[in-house]
Amino acid sequence: MPPAITARMAATPEMLACFDDDALVGAALAFERELAAALAEHGAISAAAAAAIAAACARFDATGLGDAAAHAGTLAIPLVARLRASVAPEHAGAVHLGASSQDVVDTALVLQTVQARRLIDRDLDRLGDALAALARAHATTPALARTLLQPAELVSFGMRAANWLLGIDAAHARLVREHRAAACLELGGAVGSLSALGAIGPAVRDTLAERLGLASAPSWHSRRDAIAGVGAALGIAVGALGKLARDVSLLMQRELAEVAEPAIAGRGGSSAMPHKRNPTGCQVALSAAIRAPGLVATLLAGMPQELERGLGGWQAELPVLAELFALAHGAVHAMRVVAEGLEVDAAAIAAHAAAAPPAPAGRDAALAAAARFVDEALAQHDAAVARRADR
Amino acid sequence: MPPAITARMAATPEMLACFDDDALVGAALAFERELAAALAEHGAISAAAAAAIAAACARFDATGLGDAAAHAGTLAIPLVARLRASVAPEHAGAVHLGASSQDVVDTALVLQTVQARRLIDRDLDRLGDALAALARAHATTPALARTLLQPAELVSFGMRAANWLLGIDAAHARLVREHRAAACLELGGAVGSLSALGAIGPAVRDTLAERLGLASAPSWHSRRDAIAGVGAALGIAVGALGKLARDVSLLMQRELAEVAEPAIAGRGGSSAMPHKRNPTGCQVALSAAIRAPGLVATLLAGMPQELERGLGGWQAELPVLAELFALAHGAVHAMRVVAEGLEVDAAAIAAHAAAAPPAPAGRDAALAAAARFVDEALAQHDAAVARRADR
Amino acid sequence: MPPAITARMAATPEMLACFDDDALVGAALAFERELAAALAEHGAISAAAAAAIAAACARFDATGLGDAAAHAGTLAIPLVARLRASVAPEHAGAVHLGASSQDVVDTALVLQTVQARRLIDRDLDRLGDALAALARAHATTPALARTLLQPAELVSFGMRAANWLLGIDAAHARLVREHRAAACLELGGAVGSLSALGAIGPAVRDTLAERLGLASAPSWHSRRDAIAGVGAALGIAVGALGKLARDVSLLMQRELAEVAEPAIAGRGGSSAMPHKRNPTGCQVALSAAIRAPGLVATLLAGMPQELERGLGGWQAELPVLAELFALAHGAVHAMRVVAEGLEVDAAAIAAHAAAAPPAPAGRDAALAAAARFVDEALAQHDAAVARRADR
Amino acid sequence: MPPAITARMAATPEMLACFDDDALVGAALAFERELAAALAEHGAISAAAAAAIAAACARFDATGLGDAAAHAGTLAIPLVARLRASVAPEHAGAVHLGASSQDVVDTALVLQTVQARRLIDRDLDRLGDALAALARAHATTPALARTLLQPAELVSFGMRAANWLLGIDAAHARLVREHRAAACLELGGAVGSLSALGAIGPAVRDTLAERLGLASAPSWHSRRDAIAGVGAALGIAVGALGKLARDVSLLMQRELAEVAEPAIAGRGGSSAMPHKRNPTGCQVALSAAIRAPGLVATLLAGMPQELERGLGGWQAELPVLAELFALAHGAVHAMRVVAEGLEVDAAAIAAHAAAAPPAPAGRDAALAAAARFVDEALAQHDAAVARRADR
Repeated sequence: MPPAITARMAATPEMLACFDDDALVGAALAFERELAAALAEHGAISAAAAAAIAAACARFDATGLGDAAAHAGTLAIPLVARLRASVAPEHAGAVHLGASSQDVVDTALVLQTVQARRLIDRDLDRLGDALAALARAHATTPALARTLLQPAELVSFGMRAANWLLGIDAAHARLVREHRAAACLELGGAVGSLSALGAIGPAVRDTLAERLGLASAPSWHSRRDAIAGVGAALGIAVGALGKLARDVSLLMQRELAEVAEPAIAGRGGSSAMPHKRNPTGCQVALSAAIRAPGLVATLLAGMPQELERGLGGWQAELPVLAELFALAHGAVHAMRVVAEGLEVDAAAIAAHAAAAPPAPAGRDAALAAAARFVDEALAQHDAAVARRADR
Repeated sequence: MPPAITARMAATPEMLACFDDDALVGAALAFERELAAALAEHGAISAAAAAAIAAACARFDATGLGDAAAHAGTLAIPLVARLRASVAPEHAGAVHLGASSQDVVDTALVLQTVQARRLIDRDLDRLGDALAALARAHATTPALARTLLQPAELVSFGMRAANWLLGIDAAHARLVREHRAAACLELGGAVGSLSALGAIGPAVRDTLAERLGLASAPSWHSRRDAIAGVGAALGIAVGALGKLARDVSLLMQRELAEVAEPAIAGRGGSSAMPHKRNPTGCQVALSAAIRAPGLVATLLAGMPQELERGLGGWQAELPVLAELFALAHGAVHAMRVVAEGLEVDAAAIAAHAAAAPPAPAGRDAALAAAARFVDEALAQHDAAVARRADR
Repeated sequence: MPPAITARMAATPEMLACFDDDALVGAALAFERELAAALAEHGAISAAAAAAIAAACARFDATGLGDAAAHAGTLAIPLVARLRASVAPEHAGAVHLGASSQDVVDTALVLQTVQARRLIDRDLDRLGDALAALARAHATTPALARTLLQPAELVSFGMRAANWLLGIDAAHARLVREHRAAACLELGGAVGSLSALGAIGPAVRDTLAERLGLASAPSWHSRRDAIAGVGAALGIAVGALGKLARDVSLLMQRELAEVAEPAIAGRGGSSAMPHKRNPTGCQVALSAAIRAPGLVATLLAGMPQELERGLGGWQAELPVLAELFALAHGAVHAMRVVAEGLEVDAAAIAAHAAAAPPAPAGRDAALAAAARFVDEALAQHDAAVARRADR
Repeated sequence: MPPAITARMAATPEMLACFDDDALVGAALAFERELAAALAEHGAISAAAAAAIAAACARFDATGLGDAAAHAGTLAIPLVARLRASVAPEHAGAVHLGASSQDVVDTALVLQTVQARRLIDRDLDRLGDALAALARAHATTPALARTLLQPAELVSFGMRAANWLLGIDAAHARLVREHRAAACLELGGAVGSLSALGAIGPAVRDTLAERLGLASAPSWHSRRDAIAGVGAALGIAVGALGKLARDVSLLMQRELAEVAEPAIAGRGGSSAMPHKRNPTGCQVALSAAIRAPGLVATLLAGMPQELERGLGGWQAELPVLAELFALAHGAVHAMRVVAEGLEVDAAAIAAHAAAAPPAPAGRDAALAAAARFVDEALAQHDAAVARRADR
């Protein structure tokens, strides 16, 4: 059993559930069930066979499937074998008809990411709104900018929040775009051409895609740019969250104390020093920001897959993409909680700002300039909010 | 001096020129010159000052600039100091007015990438067209598919080319999109708010952006998702090129000999075995595909930059992004040459195809299915070609 | 729950057990129990307290510990709180006395790796012996060398096996060395100095180290080179296994068919093509070889940890190191099975060798040279075998 | 021309010189010259031929070699061709006799690293000594520990320095060990067996190794663990330097101001804010720490090289290893300067320490514990110093 405690410390239970065994098997069975329905719709198998397959999917027993999949080298082999054994002999040939192992596994992965993205959307939206509120509330709250970790000139605290906001919104837009491109059915059969289904192949593919709520596209068995694109977008989102966490954790140092993570009973304590209050939300996001880049690199490194189905590169993708979703949601959830409850110590901020070197154009000009930055960012955020309905 | 021979083996001279010292200094001077022009246009400095600065840029001497920049910790310090020393004292204050070191360096980077992307566009377009021609010519040339490096079923050689094409075109579209988002002027002044310019700041920014052919956006000093996005898109493009190279190199093994890189005098030989003909173009692309993922990871890892200007993460970007462009163009150029001159041995392909297990739906159905894949891919490619004019 | 099926496809059940929740909690409890014993031995707590703590460890209930740890930000907080609540009030202060959260977690990680390394040692030893046997048996079996995937000159098949062997043995030696350096107790208390224990601190540390079978060293809370060293050594071992898998999978292509993975019922099949026999063991190792580098990079990226305890970098290590062990054992186990049962088709090898260009010094000289390579490699392997007893 | 300014900002001129074109060509020529000498010593070629080759090496003209190497696909082809054309026809066959392209390039790489490691040794030794001096001088200077970026308990400033020292010394020891294992001649001929030299092959190899000051070992053409090991050791060293830089940059924040980088005229300024003093040395090391992990991952990812000579993975190594050496020396040189001139503000440190929560065992016990840590670290450092003579 993989380490659940460790996984849980970096990720939310909801996101872990999106990629757990139930979700994986459920998505694979959805593929087989809806494939059968699509085949029946186009006359390739009987309605009775499709019904039998649906019933077999409903009573599927996944016990021992992990060992069996590891032995076979792919999840699809034992899964299909069990389904075939579970229907009447005359329907066995209708199970998985025209499909390949990779069709099941790739489509299952995509279906899992559809659920996963909803969680991330929800928390990124809330995080964006919280940052927008901070930007608006503190548009002209004087604050000391720090460049290269040294005091610089006067900005406003709202401008800092607006900068976070722009980064989060841009990363979110990229993720939506990349995921949309990747939310494609994979149905190519043994070698990608869907040849076993003959002339009805394209129609079956379109029908199945529609039933599963996915786009229909030529088989992408050994063409993995869309998966890599989603992974990269997740990595960039984690980087933007890490930037927010870096700043909050720096500003929360006791000698600065400009902000603090919200106080939550039992969170952020120390087993050796009861007086401490640690930036635990930032810890989650910064840890994710350290882990995500290597995972994105893995997806890229796996792209040069051999001929019609890769050996090694393909098989590396599922666990790595699942991990990226887990880290991303752990980070966005943690920072959403931080942003929504962020304690802003205006007095401390003001005190540091008062020590800033005089701005070349004067204090009022500096604050007006910061407020313009905030206005531009909020206008962009409003536009992003307006687009939410379209996704 | 960095190793030119080694760099040259992975990259083209044109691309290396896009990021060499002349290009870097030239782009930085373009920023300073056009900034002065924009400032003069908005009355912040005199036209005489702007002219003096332009003249100083034209006669700029970069000797020893590398050592001076390394000593100072940023290129901008000695560059601006030399410019100031090179104009009459009354114009010294007009040099770099309102700008920060990071404004120069970030904008210079962006300007360099604009040139660099043109090279990549040119060769990706040609590569796409060459692959489309292969797909069209061999749409029904029977070929043996191989999955997990083992013989599978019948496809067509054109379908294989169409699969390469789809991957390359998708990667190209992503690169265009990401680069467009990143082709932004950076002008934020000391702390990103452009405060030193007061109320005319936004107008100066817009004017400068227009003069430089870039978009105008709020300062992105410590918001690096767009840079990471370009890097990721380059990495994915290299991965798609690596996939093509992997396949060509496998198919070129003597025991398969289905294709061969074009014979070019003096290329692909061996110092110990004169009889050999090595897949040298594939070597360049596969080597790039091994190197790019770590560089993309670096850009992601550097994203959580501290407060208003990062310490370490920011400074890591320029050399890494330049390296990604170099590897990408080395790979696309090499594979464009390979694809344009690819030797396809139809007889060898046919012989292997004849040994394929009988396709479940028969040979004709298999070829028809492959041809449908080709048609779909070519239709997408035609649409991509039609969009070329817009970028 | 993390995805067990996916994890299982890349790793062995035994290795997954080394890092599952039971193992993690068990190791953490071993730390607390033996710490109490060591404290009692040096008079810092009573023997009754130590006994009470040992009893509490024995009846520890880990239900819900994952959620509690995620909430607190560290496993140690709820673990220690439960232990304290489980002993009589007068012994509560003796629990975890002098230790910090990181002491528990770091030492638990090290204890888990001790078990994990045993599994890897066992299979690397067997793999080495199997490769040595192949090298010996085929020391002068003529084989065609291939460089840059093109036919080169005559070697022997045994020389190829000897080359694999040298790579595996060298990687194994590095892993043993690095793990020995990392197999250290962490006991530093709140800030690494073990100050809460006063003058007996060093003695308690030595005693506890001895009880746990670990070395005693100054606290390494924010000094992570040894962890990174183990990770890098695992990554290099996976790379050496990937090299073996790359070669076997290439040689197993039907057009070469020089070797084959052992035939195992139900392994390596295809859901769409019953005739296929896939290189499933190689698939596991090649997939690991794609995933490991990014994980090693993560450990390195996490090294610059802040002051006395890192925020993000430290927390990234446990899951990443556990994953590296999982991938390494998955790979070594798979390739051990492949090597022990490798089917070598001497006739096919001979046929390809016969087609090799004439060696410059003649066939006999070529085989004699290959045999010398084998002899050197076997001599080194014998020396490595002799050193096994020392580890 | 690769970007010299950018390279210079991350690396020292001396280290860049270790891997520039002159160094590369010089090392390659050293291989060819000494190979000829070794061949002559064992009677394989005449003394006259060896002398002619040495003379040709001395007058070698590298103009255009980069383009020629890029065209051929390897540096060795044009280099050897030029040498052959430069000697009398009767000696042409003696040039490069028995060797392969990879022999030249691999050995040249190793020879370059030998020079490079000397630079790193020199500065790591000095850095270690500077940190040891800080640890000794401040063994009981009270300082506030900070864990998870929050104030913790009392340690001493010397303990912090001792922790840095232990990390640097351990990384240095690993680098010495890994480099020693990698400092091997590569001489394997076309396919690694050295068959072209017949029975004298081993003797020629030993002689050549001795002449070049390298170890003699079986050809490692496609066995790259030692290269990866050096890369990983460099990456870990950069990580340890990054840890030091992280801490110094945090402690140098104006609100803490416990330490400062030494004031050096013209270093660490700002083009927009003349009052600033930036942590420029830390910037170099932190930037290296962000870049190194991806490069190490690249070396690992390239390990599964195909059969007797890899296609892509091998060719990725030289530039990547050179970059790692460049980053490592840039970082160690920068931090050596920082450590040797570190400004320690004892009053500021004391003021923060005074605000620390009372240590559980009291202030004196806390300082005594810190001093013990220092003593242990200094004892280890003294042992490391004593071993310097052996390397």
